[in-house]
Amino acid sequence: MRNILPIVALALPLLYFAIPTPPPIADDAAMVRRIFDEALANGQAHDHLRILCKDIGHRLSGSPQAAKAVVWGQQTLRTCGMDTVFLQPVMVPHWERGAKESCEMLLNGKRETLDIMALGGSIGGKVSGEVVEVQNFDELKALGTAIKGKIVFFNRPFLVTEISGFRAYGGCVNQRVDGASQAAAFGAIGVLVRSMTHALDRYPHTGVMHYADTAAKIPAAAVSTLSCRRLHEVLAAGAKVRITLTMHCQVFPDAPSHNVVGELRGSQSPNEYIVVGGHLDSWDIGEGAHDDGAGVAQSIEALRILKAIGYQPKHTLRAILFMNEENGARGAAEYAALAKSHGEKHLFAMESDRGGFTPRGFAVQDTGAMLRHVQQFKALLAPYGFTDWETGHGGVDVGPLAAQGTTLIGYMPDSQRYFDHHHAQTDVFESVHKRELLLGAAGMAALIYLLDNYPTR
Amino acid sequence: MRNILPIVALALPLLYFAIPTPPPIADDAAMVRRIFDEALANGQAHDHLRILCKDIGHRLSGSPQAAKAVVWGQQTLRTCGMDTVFLQPVMVPHWERGAKESCEMLLNGKRETLDIMALGGSIGGKVSGEVVEVQNFDELKALGTAIKGKIVFFNRPFLVTEISGFRAYGGCVNQRVDGASQAAAFGAIGVLVRSMTHALDRYPHTGVMHYADTAAKIPAAAVSTLSCRRLHEVLAAGAKVRITLTMHCQVFPDAPSHNVVGELRGSQSPNEYIVVGGHLDSWDIGEGAHDDGAGVAQSIEALRILKAIGYQPKHTLRAILFMNEENGARGAAEYAALAKSHGEKHLFAMESDRGGFTPRGFAVQDTGAMLRHVQQFKALLAPYGFTDWETGHGGVDVGPLAAQGTTLIGYMPDSQRYFDHHHAQTDVFESVHKRELLLGAAGMAALIYLLDNYPTR
Repeated sequence: MRNILPIVALALPLLYFAIPTPPPIADDAAMVRRIFDEALANGQAHDHLRILCKDIGHRLSGSPQAAKAVVWGQQTLRTCGMDTVFLQPVMVPHWERGAKESCEMLLNGKRETLDIMALGGSIGGKVSGEVVEVQNFDELKALGTAIKGKIVFFNRPFLVTEISGFRAYGGCVNQRVDGASQAAAFGAIGVLVRSMTHALDRYPHTGVMHYADTAAKIPAAAVSTLSCRRLHEVLAAGAKVRITLTMHCQVFPDAPSHNVVGELRGSQSPNEYIVVGGHLDSWDIGEGAHDDGAGVAQSIEALRILKAIGYQPKHTLRAILFMNEENGARGAAEYAALAKSHGEKHLFAMESDRGGFTPRGFAVQDTGAMLRHVQQFKALLAPYGFTDWETGHGGVDVGPLAAQGTTLIGYMPDSQRYFDHHHAQTDVFESVHKRELLLGAAGMAALIYLLDNYPTR
Repeated sequence: MRNILPIVALALPLLYFAIPTPPPIADDAAMVRRIFDEALANGQAHDHLRILCKDIGHRLSGSPQAAKAVVWGQQTLRTCGMDTVFLQPVMVPHWERGAKESCEMLLNGKRETLDIMALGGSIGGKVSGEVVEVQNFDELKALGTAIKGKIVFFNRPFLVTEISGFRAYGGCVNQRVDGASQAAAFGAIGVLVRSMTHALDRYPHTGVMHYADTAAKIPAAAVSTLSCRRLHEVLAAGAKVRITLTMHCQVFPDAPSHNVVGELRGSQSPNEYIVVGGHLDSWDIGEGAHDDGAGVAQSIEALRILKAIGYQPKHTLRAILFMNEENGARGAAEYAALAKSHGEKHLFAMESDRGGFTPRGFAVQDTGAMLRHVQQFKALLAPYGFTDWETGHGGVDVGPLAAQGTTLIGYMPDSQRYFDHHHAQTDVFESVHKRELLLGAAGMAALIYLLDNYPTR
């Protein structure tokens, strides 16, 4: 008997700590460290991305490569130890560029070639006409029907003094998305649009454009910034410039495709979800490395890390590889619709679709209590480079979940180099840095761990 | 008479604001914005760096290129509108690599080549012997005289879980600096040292090594990480590996060279100085783009920006292009000695020698009041990406100024990519991003402006 008391005294603390209470901050810091150690020592995101980029390559919705990427996504999530991996069928737009497009400039009887690339969704065709340069829709309207029969050249550059690449993009992208219909309304027969980049080089940057129902459909192409400079120079010198734009794009009927979902089942609240995703589709050039192979690889990696270190999630965690972000966001809509119809309560939805560069922080799509709640975790992640925790856009693919009250969070890497590669031939595996990619994935995993343990204040 | 009072009432506020009191924070924010606008819209650092890298190239102390770089520095500072540009003569070490070195491995009767490069300061010579691999000096000592007549292979890698590249470097670099003498003390005839990088590639990374007076001088070479992997594999498999190391390095008598200094004279306290610098010399491969062409171009740019926006400094500002940081720091010693002998009081000395990558913040070499003083400016610069304001190393070149009580500040860019290029063939102009370089220069200019106006609390 004399030994009983000491034994009980030893056992009590063990029992006490076995009760699943939220761990104190010191334990959270240790868990965050463990997550980063696992990522940096054993991370697979870079190897996964290499396969997606090099063995499959670019993968526009409806393409054979997109179908291969779906199979790759399933297999990769399975090898990373998900409890369940499943597909969500979704019909997606199917547009093809066709044979290589071209643009010839006729100047003083001499021919010059401009670097162009059809914008995604543009019609094909061959148009010839005089070029008129404008910076914005106000200048277009001021010209009015004077542009009838001409080709409009939208040449508003990225604002160089804007620190964030994304804000610079936001200040220009309406030229690309709506320029064709705006110009067609005044009788233009085609549009050239300055590439969405700070860089000065020979690479056209494609991207989605839309036709309004109210205007004729006219061909629309992106122009490299060096060709923009050339075209601007000759126009500014007062030359009459005629160009011939030839494109072979075609729209086909919608095609079947899939979102890919991998899941780690929650131990306490399995029907409450914390999800993380990127998009599996890309534009039809380069390798879709930063946009958004990186986000896909990081989303898979975030859950792989948590599984590898033996973490048991309380809520169900999902990595979602969305289909068709680039030209329709049909996968995003389908995911949210299914979540609603299945009564799946999504607490947090995180997205990585700003490239795989060195971490800066997270954007929380909230200005109130949930922003402040998420900002509490800054102190734990700032030592790893996650210093910016601001209100901001969550992401296109998680966007539709906002309707069910989900808090949306966007992973924010550094933005200085992103638009050098975005939607261009240079968006290849070699432009992604292994450690930068893994640090991002680790930060996402760490924030998922923290949200899983502290879903509310 | 009736108009006098209103006129006085109007004049008084103007008089009041004409008194040179510290401007309120709102004005500082506007000035910081103006500095970044000037850098991003009209910045010249990237063009300056292109000339240094492409027209001159690498520029080891004592080389003809280093002499050309001095002339380039003078001319560039003059074109940037400095009040004065002058040279400080200094004698520097003169070491030459000579003809390309080689390393042959003999394994089972077959020859293989390893990627190597002499370490800076190593003697030349040809040595053949068996290879012994160690991770650190403890393992070396445990082997003791068993390494007599052999070639020691120091293969301790960068710690992958270290977030900062500089801390990973700090954990390994003693192999490179002291490895030869440590091994020679036990009778080794040569050393191979794993390149100081996280990257796995074919590029050896050179760097300075020193011989202790107490041991024989033996040849020392850096090995690419891929060759390290190969060598480790064959040794781990139990093979006896003999290598032949052939190097042609030579030490010549010290050579005359110069620091280059550009100055904007202070309007209130001309004999109190706030200085910023980088080093003009580089290793003798690549182009010394990140190390430290970037720091040189940013130091020039910081003062160019302040001049271009018409700022009148209160203290004298200097951009210092130090000579011989890489293998002697003679320029640093000379600058500090001259400052002392001329009675020049240096309040702050800032250095950029961690690469030209996207900004993270500043390291202040202080743990007390001056750290807290400088940290006050974080709120003004965080919107531009300068979020880390910590105690840390100021820099090798500003180091000797600590003796006169100067507060040393190191510019801190992101460190993930730096050691991919550091002291290697890949440190070329193309690896430096224009906007990242300019953002760093603007942050340095902004902090100089703030320190000039608020030198103490």
